[in-house]
Amino acid sequence: MVLAIDRRIGKYAILLAMNGDQEEFPVVTPSQWKSCMGKVGSMDSQKVVAAIETAAKREGIIKSDGYRETHALYHAIMDALSGVTRGQVQLGSVMRTVGLRFSVVRGNPYEELEEGDWIAVALYGTIGAPVRGSEHETIGLGINHI
Amino acid sequence: MVLAIDRRIGKYAILLAMNGDQEEFPVVTPSQWKSCMGKVGSMDSQKVVAAIETAAKREGIIKSDGYRETHALYHAIMDALSGVTRGQVQLGSVMRTVGLRFSVVRGNPYEELEEGDWIAVALYGTIGAPVRGSEHETIGLGINHI
Amino acid sequence: MVLAIDRRIGKYAILLAMNGDQEEFPVVTPSQWKSCMGKVGSMDSQKVVAAIETAAKREGIIKSDGYRETHALYHAIMDALSGVTRGQVQLGSVMRTVGLRFSVVRGNPYEELEEGDWIAVALYGTIGAPVRGSEHETIGLGINHI
Amino acid sequence: MVLAIDRRIGKYAILLAMNGDQEEFPVVTPSQWKSCMGKVGSMDSQKVVAAIETAAKREGIIKSDGYRETHALYHAIMDALSGVTRGQVQLGSVMRTVGLRFSVVRGNPYEELEEGDWIAVALYGTIGAPVRGSEHETIGLGINHI
Amino acid sequence: MVLAIDRRIGKYAILLAMNGDQEEFPVVTPSQWKSCMGKVGSMDSQKVVAAIETAAKREGIIKSDGYRETHALYHAIMDALSGVTRGQVQLGSVMRTVGLRFSVVRGNPYEELEEGDWIAVALYGTIGAPVRGSEHETIGLGINHI
Amino acid sequence: MVLAIDRRIGKYAILLAMNGDQEEFPVVTPSQWKSCMGKVGSMDSQKVVAAIETAAKREGIIKSDGYRETHALYHAIMDALSGVTRGQVQLGSVMRTVGLRFSVVRGNPYEELEEGDWIAVALYGTIGAPVRGSEHETIGLGINHI
Ligand SMILES: [Mg+2]
Ligand SMILES: [Mg+2]
Ligand SMILES: [Mg+2]
Ligand SMILES: [Mg+2]
Ligand SMILES: [Mg+2]
Ligand SMILES: [Mg+2]
Repeated sequence: MVLAIDRRIGKYAILLAMNGDQEEFPVVTPSQWKSCMGKVGSMDSQKVVAAIETAAKREGIIKSDGYRETHALYHAIMDALSGVTRGQVQLGSVMRTVGLRFSVVRGNPYEELEEGDWIAVALYGTIGAPVRGSEHETIGLGINHI
Repeated sequence: MVLAIDRRIGKYAILLAMNGDQEEFPVVTPSQWKSCMGKVGSMDSQKVVAAIETAAKREGIIKSDGYRETHALYHAIMDALSGVTRGQVQLGSVMRTVGLRFSVVRGNPYEELEEGDWIAVALYGTIGAPVRGSEHETIGLGINHI
Repeated sequence: MVLAIDRRIGKYAILLAMNGDQEEFPVVTPSQWKSCMGKVGSMDSQKVVAAIETAAKREGIIKSDGYRETHALYHAIMDALSGVTRGQVQLGSVMRTVGLRFSVVRGNPYEELEEGDWIAVALYGTIGAPVRGSEHETIGLGINHI
Repeated sequence: MVLAIDRRIGKYAILLAMNGDQEEFPVVTPSQWKSCMGKVGSMDSQKVVAAIETAAKREGIIKSDGYRETHALYHAIMDALSGVTRGQVQLGSVMRTVGLRFSVVRGNPYEELEEGDWIAVALYGTIGAPVRGSEHETIGLGINHI
Repeated sequence: MVLAIDRRIGKYAILLAMNGDQEEFPVVTPSQWKSCMGKVGSMDSQKVVAAIETAAKREGIIKSDGYRETHALYHAIMDALSGVTRGQVQLGSVMRTVGLRFSVVRGNPYEELEEGDWIAVALYGTIGAPVRGSEHETIGLGINHI
Repeated sequence: MVLAIDRRIGKYAILLAMNGDQEEFPVVTPSQWKSCMGKVGSMDSQKVVAAIETAAKREGIIKSDGYRETHALYHAIMDALSGVTRGQVQLGSVMRTVGLRFSVVRGNPYEELEEGDWIAVALYGTIGAPVRGSEHETIGLGINHI
């Protein structure tokens, strides 16, 4: 189980989330991998979770039915949110809001075939007071086996 | 106070931390900004903190004497470690180890001059069991005014 | 202060919470102990706290007036919720819901009379997405002197 | 994805961990499921993690090589430890020690075959000051897809 | 960077918050320092944050425009709330409410001029169930460079 | 259950901890109350817990034998440490050290006799890098029924 140099799933996810509309970083994930991107801005952490989950299911990154893949994705999202919130996974209840781009990437980042699929959720954007401009950048990455 | 498009201090810090030896991402920070990079691998979270702090002082990113800038850096490091550890800022005590590249970037990411200097600490690498290969990627970003 | 083998208050509480309608585990708590059971399902953590507190007061497990016993019960509930939520004591705000059975048991689990009464709160049920079946089991136990 | 009444993997795990030497609860897990039990007492949280992981690999509950199953088990252990420690996953560093029985159970608790295998880690025992008898019961359960 | 005996900014802030209407503790902060006080009672943590921030801006303790000083104050408030809530920065969502007096003090507590201004946020009051009298005291202090 | 104006146990505890050698705040606790004070400086959180517990037992604030009172004190200490550490109850493992004065006060702060004894643990001092002067003030208060 060695992470392959050119299959860094977390790095791909981060670049996709940071790419913005200009696509300044050319990201070519390995063939057979799946990925999607999206945007969400909210003071409500529930809406962030829902936006990512909805996109991942709509784009076919994970199965819409069944619990297994939803469970894998959920915990990857929670891990990514930990990085964004750094301490308490709370937004509006502590008077802050986020404006995020997200990506979800699915594939096997290891040399060994039997490691199977993993999922990476990356979040990049801003966090701050609910006042335009009163914000700084924030990032989060969650990785899970799926 | 608007984050300038081409002065995204967190994005620069992340790219520097992910760049590795190949410097695959050409990162040109604004002139007058300061930055440094380094590597640290440990089961001891204290060593991660110390490695970053030592590098930042040695490279002149923050002042070596006085407390003010050390305090700003310390909390940025703790925020970055939150993203890496996602929940409990513990490594060896919960049987895991990290292999990280880090960057520290200092500059003003806002349009307005009076926002002054901010500091970004980015961590990128792997976290996992103390067994080679039993690990996945992890990332963390902390940003503070300085 | 030695925990008596046949007065394991936490074990009794867990069995009562897991017993369900079939009462598959015959639980006979020591005479003079008090206990109650109930059910609560919600995305709102406040409702879980309220349901347990209301039942414990209505069934006479703790005194309805005064603060002392309410304080003891409250912290036992919070400890039990920690086990259920594992990290952030949040439900709906991170897009998850619980379906729980709970029990509250009061008595002295120690050999020594002077250890006085203690209270155990046990929670057992499911946690997961707000979609039927997208859930797994969860448990929590809080114990406090009262 | 419906949790089957007679395949409650968490309930089985809890009963196995609470069973003690007397095996007071007859636990018959579904055929083809795997499970193991063990004991660990320590002020060192790392030793608790290691004891469970070692037992699960030695007893063939998870594969010894590869990372995927180790990753699934690790996060189930961390979730179970959250319930035991209720807040900070720390033992000796906050002057407390645990004496625990643990179980690891692997199987599919859902009606649907495609939900695949899940793993449950249960911990039951005492937590308290490093003085004999100065302790109360504690429990933790972690469940993950594997 | 040595904390000056008679410029203990945190101590001043605590005394101001504990002073109440009787002003039982004569607090004379160093000349050129700024401070304000206020009261807030709520089950909604967002309202506590907002009350402090609004008072600090209205009284000119921090600049109303720009992000830098708002960021410094915000993290000092969050640190103070950590002390008040001890674990989860949540109020109503875990069925508790606070009645607090707060103070914000700004000045340089160090012997050295170059340490610049720091900000202290102190909270003192009660926390408990949303029932009059079912509460005990609580305190929190956050200190940050500004 | 109403907190009596002149029996604010937390306020007394805080004043005692902030009093220092000069005893600048005249603190006269109600007769029949018990209190003790002490100092502890360490990078090791375990030593802080031990110092307080040892002092409280040696000075007769709580009973040396039995678990009940030790349990009440322990959780009050942990709550106070939460305020001091604001997030992670860790010192050396995140490269910081504390220099604290502590007080433990025992008595009934309520108007009603039946609320019985409560215990308050207050911590006041500095937290920071393990370099003389690289520190700021910190405070914590824990209150529990006993
Ligand atoms: Mg789960
Ligand atoms: Mg600080
Ligand atoms: Mg309390
Ligand atoms: Mg992991
Ligand atoms: Mg910030
Ligand atoms: Mg306890």
